[in-house]
Amino acid sequence: MDNLFSEKPFYYAVIFTSQLSQDTTDYDDVAEEIEKRAKEQPGFINVESVRDTSGFGITISYWESLEAIKQWKDNAAHTIARQRGREQWYEQFHVRICLVEKEYVFHRKEF
Amino acid sequence: MDNLFSEKPFYYAVIFTSQLSQDTTDYDDVAEEIEKRAKEQPGFINVESVRDTSGFGITISYWESLEAIKQWKDNAAHTIARQRGREQWYEQFHVRICLVEKEYVFHRKEF
Repeated sequence: MDNLFSEKPFYYAVIFTSQLSQDTTDYDDVAEEIEKRAKEQPGFINVESVRDTSGFGITISYWESLEAIKQWKDNAAHTIARQRGREQWYEQFHVRICLVEKEYVFHRKEF
Repeated sequence: MDNLFSEKPFYYAVIFTSQLSQDTTDYDDVAEEIEKRAKEQPGFINVESVRDTSGFGITISYWESLEAIKQWKDNAAHTIARQRGREQWYEQFHVRICLVEKEYVFHRKEF
């Protein structure tokens, strides 16, 4: 793949940064299930997720529109999981809904 | 801190996702120095970064304006580091410049 520079891609990123609490019972299983369901949602593009050993994590999901994000927010299984996140799994979290205005992709070319 | 919901915060997030290459000589030292310099830039708000053991990482820096992001891109030390990143440290990376349109903050309240 060549390096790409693109103006105005006009899709959305939901940045979810979080600190896990001490009680992460069922967290991995539910997170996996929720990610699977997100991928089935209309308007879903991609998800990327990293967590470090201290329990701090960043998950970014990419969506075609604000409407797609809203539909995913209203999804029943996701709503239940978010509630459990607030009550049990997360010490804190921060959600940011962002319009991706510009992007640049680099892939190393081997010579 | 109470939970906050905010419409139209109007600041920018630069999402940098990357896969490290095999050759990460000097990477940690330069990354630390570059982060220190970013924090001194006009318009800098915050930075959050996580990398997993496979070398995949997400770094998000937050900025007051596109102009602040442009000034940081043109910073001499940053430009040299970016060049070295393309030549040596990164197998691939993806930069997305995003307008933060909406955000929600949750902090657990202890009872």
